[in-house]
Amino acid sequence: MEILQKISDSLLTLKEKKPLVHHITNYVTVNDCANITLAIGASPVMADDIGEVAEMVSFASALVLNIGTLNSRNIESMMAVGKKAREKGIAIVFDPVGVGATALRTATAKKIIQEVGPSVIRGNMSEIKIIAGLDAGIKGVDSVADEAGGETVARQLSQKLGCVIAITGKQDIIAAGERVCRIDNGHAILSQVTGTGCMATSLIACYCGATGDCFTGAAAGVMTMGMAGEIAQQSLQAGEGVGTFRMRLFDAVWAMTPELITKGGRISNA
Amino acid sequence: MEILQKISDSLLTLKEKKPLVHHITNYVTVNDCANITLAIGASPVMADDIGEVAEMVSFASALVLNIGTLNSRNIESMMAVGKKAREKGIAIVFDPVGVGATALRTATAKKIIQEVGPSVIRGNMSEIKIIAGLDAGIKGVDSVADEAGGETVARQLSQKLGCVIAITGKQDIIAAGERVCRIDNGHAILSQVTGTGCMATSLIACYCGATGDCFTGAAAGVMTMGMAGEIAQQSLQAGEGVGTFRMRLFDAVWAMTPELITKGGRISNA
Amino acid sequence: MEILQKISDSLLTLKEKKPLVHHITNYVTVNDCANITLAIGASPVMADDIGEVAEMVSFASALVLNIGTLNSRNIESMMAVGKKAREKGIAIVFDPVGVGATALRTATAKKIIQEVGPSVIRGNMSEIKIIAGLDAGIKGVDSVADEAGGETVARQLSQKLGCVIAITGKQDIIAAGERVCRIDNGHAILSQVTGTGCMATSLIACYCGATGDCFTGAAAGVMTMGMAGEIAQQSLQAGEGVGTFRMRLFDAVWAMTPELITKGGRISNA
Repeated sequence: MEILQKISDSLLTLKEKKPLVHHITNYVTVNDCANITLAIGASPVMADDIGEVAEMVSFASALVLNIGTLNSRNIESMMAVGKKAREKGIAIVFDPVGVGATALRTATAKKIIQEVGPSVIRGNMSEIKIIAGLDAGIKGVDSVADEAGGETVARQLSQKLGCVIAITGKQDIIAAGERVCRIDNGHAILSQVTGTGCMATSLIACYCGATGDCFTGAAAGVMTMGMAGEIAQQSLQAGEGVGTFRMRLFDAVWAMTPELITKGGRISNA
Repeated sequence: MEILQKISDSLLTLKEKKPLVHHITNYVTVNDCANITLAIGASPVMADDIGEVAEMVSFASALVLNIGTLNSRNIESMMAVGKKAREKGIAIVFDPVGVGATALRTATAKKIIQEVGPSVIRGNMSEIKIIAGLDAGIKGVDSVADEAGGETVARQLSQKLGCVIAITGKQDIIAAGERVCRIDNGHAILSQVTGTGCMATSLIACYCGATGDCFTGAAAGVMTMGMAGEIAQQSLQAGEGVGTFRMRLFDAVWAMTPELITKGGRISNA
Repeated sequence: MEILQKISDSLLTLKEKKPLVHHITNYVTVNDCANITLAIGASPVMADDIGEVAEMVSFASALVLNIGTLNSRNIESMMAVGKKAREKGIAIVFDPVGVGATALRTATAKKIIQEVGPSVIRGNMSEIKIIAGLDAGIKGVDSVADEAGGETVARQLSQKLGCVIAITGKQDIIAAGERVCRIDNGHAILSQVTGTGCMATSLIACYCGATGDCFTGAAAGVMTMGMAGEIAQQSLQAGEGVGTFRMRLFDAVWAMTPELITKGGRISNA
């Protein structure tokens, strides 16, 4: 079965199973992550205290670890919940927000990758290159890295770490071992709203939690966000901008159907 | 005076008094809680450090305690601020988010109920049944409990704890001792947006802070949220979904009037 | 060059330079602050752990310190990051949210002013009067102070502290030493949405980070917010309220141009 059909089918499965997705995430975009999880048809739970995270994740189908506003308290919780999720075989989606910007972020990302072992890592080109040990800058949490050669970076990193790599940017790249594909959905205005990366990560977790297939799940999450961005952008009328766009992203994810994906999804082997 | 008239009058009082409502709440929906408090005409303040909570609540007319993202730091603050509010006779509205999902949530809810003594507890059917010691499951923070027999659960729990119980769901139930009423406002789409429960709790606190009448206040808060949900849902046009709905909830609460409540409120004795 | 022209030019510079603005801010309005920073054309980064703040701010062009939800952890981080920013000559914009409401807020504001030395302080009339040591009340985080005589308060405080003072309210006042101006943009509905003050502070930081001119930057940030409020309010149609208004604020800031400022800005010497 071709990948676009698999993505389309995944959405059906997601809507039937309504997976519970446990997040330990940043306080900047946490509300957006909860709402996008609900919009696609899954169920979000946010809990980050060391006293409850291992218990909470036991009932979840997927786990999101996002270091956007990391601190000593939530790092400890991420390590504990990550190990529990791993033990239980729950899909773990890691968003290394701003890795490379500070030594703490770089060390924490390394620790999560080595000791937890995520199923999927989703980041922008700077973040993924930095994780791959390549020479790349980062501006706060925004990518400034050259997107050329992203497929090779993604493929090699995926093979090295044994997990799915998803790079989002002008063009999105998904790699799992030898398999690499490109997704051409999306719109530049997505980068002018905070949280669109974090929300893509949450959507990936929703799909992975529903199907257990993390390559398809990563592609499905990234494609859903990209298509929603296109639909929201196309709806804008005179006088409307990023505020309206942001609201319509949720409308578009909520209205996403397998048919829309089959028709509008643009994915190809790299 | 019948209850619907009392609710309608409460809104007038709220808009005149603009009560200050102190929240210790979760970081997922805190912005929504602040905005809904402003939208109805009250004044929100969010402060959770142990070094200032007792002083801050002294100027408030109502207190919200919401354990959506509880941790050792905010639990300590909730206990301290709760006791101070109790001492000062300030209405305390407790939202036991996700009680039953983890031992920490269950223990914290128990502690707040026993040592603080809330004026109102608002939860979904799972949360209220779990507090009542009944056998009920919960999926993260979402209810999976059977709604049948809710009036009896609410009445008995209210009598046992000596506080108002508000259950929100397909049908909403408010109980204070022997008095029980049902509210039939609302729409299923409310459950597809995060924070609508938390916002109902905040609205209850706004009303209780304005009038001191916690039975009417609980009914008024729940009804306001339900009616706003109906108005927002009815306004949706082709292509609009949960994003637009969420925005219009704030429009509808902001535009709520005593006349609208008298006309659109659906409340009956159980 | 007159001030309105300077403000207009600042927006061009901001859009060219896309300054990185590091925030340590409250969890109530942090998402709004990130989105308004992106909407005007700058780049936000939120990081508050003591283990990374000094490193993160080293790459930033401006720093926001906002005590809306202060606690022992973020106070420590604010002191450390503030000193680093001062050492590096980075513009520091301080928002003393709710100063005067509790002893902790008052002590923290004093400590930040004395030990960090902000470039700009933006607050409402209550907050600025309290910092000036005048007799003024505050209701949670909302101003209840008389706005008469604000120019004198601002001028004297600016001279005493050696920083720019920005008071926002019915009329906005910007003072730097002997220079004082009034801004007459804005609309009362801005006070019915949480975070409009915090967002004005973020916008000030974006302008100061781009140009290094903190008097013009403070005026530009306040004027941009005020004009966006006017544009958003004028766009409202029947049935639309604070929810729609809030969304359109972001649309309006995103669409702001030097020409709109030149045409719509209302600023005069006090």
